[in-house]
Amino acid sequence: MSEAPTTPSPAVPEEPLRSVPELRRYKLTIAYDGTLFHGWQKQEPAGVEPLRTVQGVVEQAVLRTMQQQLNVVGASRTDAGVHALGQTAQFDAATRIPLERMADAINSRLPEDVEVRRAEFAPPGFDAISGARSKQYRYRLFMSKLRPLDRRHYVYHCWTPLDVGRMNDAARRMIGEHDFLGFAAASHDRITTVRTIHDCRVEAVGDEVQVVVSGSGFLYNMVRIITGTLVEVGRGRFGPEVVDLVLRTRERREAGPTMPPTGLWLEWVKYE
Amino acid sequence: MSEAPTTPSPAVPEEPLRSVPELRRYKLTIAYDGTLFHGWQKQEPAGVEPLRTVQGVVEQAVLRTMQQQLNVVGASRTDAGVHALGQTAQFDAATRIPLERMADAINSRLPEDVEVRRAEFAPPGFDAISGARSKQYRYRLFMSKLRPLDRRHYVYHCWTPLDVGRMNDAARRMIGEHDFLGFAAASHDRITTVRTIHDCRVEAVGDEVQVVVSGSGFLYNMVRIITGTLVEVGRGRFGPEVVDLVLRTRERREAGPTMPPTGLWLEWVKYE
Repeated sequence: MSEAPTTPSPAVPEEPLRSVPELRRYKLTIAYDGTLFHGWQKQEPAGVEPLRTVQGVVEQAVLRTMQQQLNVVGASRTDAGVHALGQTAQFDAATRIPLERMADAINSRLPEDVEVRRAEFAPPGFDAISGARSKQYRYRLFMSKLRPLDRRHYVYHCWTPLDVGRMNDAARRMIGEHDFLGFAAASHDRITTVRTIHDCRVEAVGDEVQVVVSGSGFLYNMVRIITGTLVEVGRGRFGPEVVDLVLRTRERREAGPTMPPTGLWLEWVKYE
Repeated sequence: MSEAPTTPSPAVPEEPLRSVPELRRYKLTIAYDGTLFHGWQKQEPAGVEPLRTVQGVVEQAVLRTMQQQLNVVGASRTDAGVHALGQTAQFDAATRIPLERMADAINSRLPEDVEVRRAEFAPPGFDAISGARSKQYRYRLFMSKLRPLDRRHYVYHCWTPLDVGRMNDAARRMIGEHDFLGFAAASHDRITTVRTIHDCRVEAVGDEVQVVVSGSGFLYNMVRIITGTLVEVGRGRFGPEVVDLVLRTRERREAGPTMPPTGLWLEWVKYE
């Protein structure tokens, strides 16, 4: 047998026992009671205590779970007092935590008014904000003469009866692609005020009347102003054709009031 | 014609335009969310700010409505965090406020987490405490793996499945006149620990399991200890015959744990 060659082979680095985890994007579905939050969006003014926000609280929990710096980005910047059943958020991390343990691991570091309902690998090219194709909101109106004692942070207490049929006549007129400037609060960060509403309907559910709206996207306070307008129609102050008027004139003053945040729920965000 | 007699007639006081209102006893039916109250019972320790209690808040509202000093006495001294749909209370007042306006008048001076649901004249001899013949409580157990976000102050989150059939087997054994010392927290202000339970049952209601107990009266923490015992039966840790054991031995340590107050609701108080 010939002797093995003596020329040293090039130094091959030893394989690590465990491979370095890959940087991946994760998609979270998050539910929360917005009552005690200053909205979704992080607010950390310099020099003072940061405000308690859902993004801030979730980011802290994810950070502590992953032991690395990262950002948690949400699809919808819900206002203070607004609730969510299916907010969607993303973060990028390199971690060995198995996917099936991810939600529990984050939840164990979250307070009781927020919960990760699902954690999954984001599909290739996923972006929580720009990739959102449809969102659905629900506004809950409490219709009893009694006070909504244990629901008071989750509904709006409506004292006057509402005509759900009339409200649905008005709601149907919202559906489609329109310029919704007249249904929006003033805001300076938008290029276009044209949005597509996929569905808009009013449902009687027990002692509540609920306004359900889904669409490609929403202007600032748009669901709350749509609801305020439908309530005025339901009370008989406006005719259902007020919707056509506001869409045509784009005049905020022709629409109904902005409803308070407490009755509003973000139900889901859909992607392609 | 003879002249009218000149002897002056005795001074008759002029009738007041409105008669002095009669002192009457009123009966109130009161609902509240107990989350932000230190229980029903007034607590006004000397030298410090009084604690926020339902009795204190209702008494202030009644005082301001009636413009007179009075006491509001409740049938049941619910603990901090315990809720009520039908607490019963009384007060004595002389007032011209019509009965049909009484509840609204008091409610207009009450915060949003408490409400007078009914005001009526108490029948003759009525006493809210000693006249109570039956009270019903309901303990709500939330059975989902998800967090009870908007119900978290109104239910107990139960992670383990419960066998409602087994629980009902145990619950039935509570019914009747028994010495409930083993189902009570230590307390020194009672003469007898014998009580009559009229009904005790367990119901599956949506994603909740609810323990319903009505009886002539309850010892301190009795409903919460009964529920804790039934939960242990439902989880399979105790057999249903644990109830007979506790009733026979009167040993608190043989029973289940005291459930937290948040899931407990006082439903009604009945009088003869």
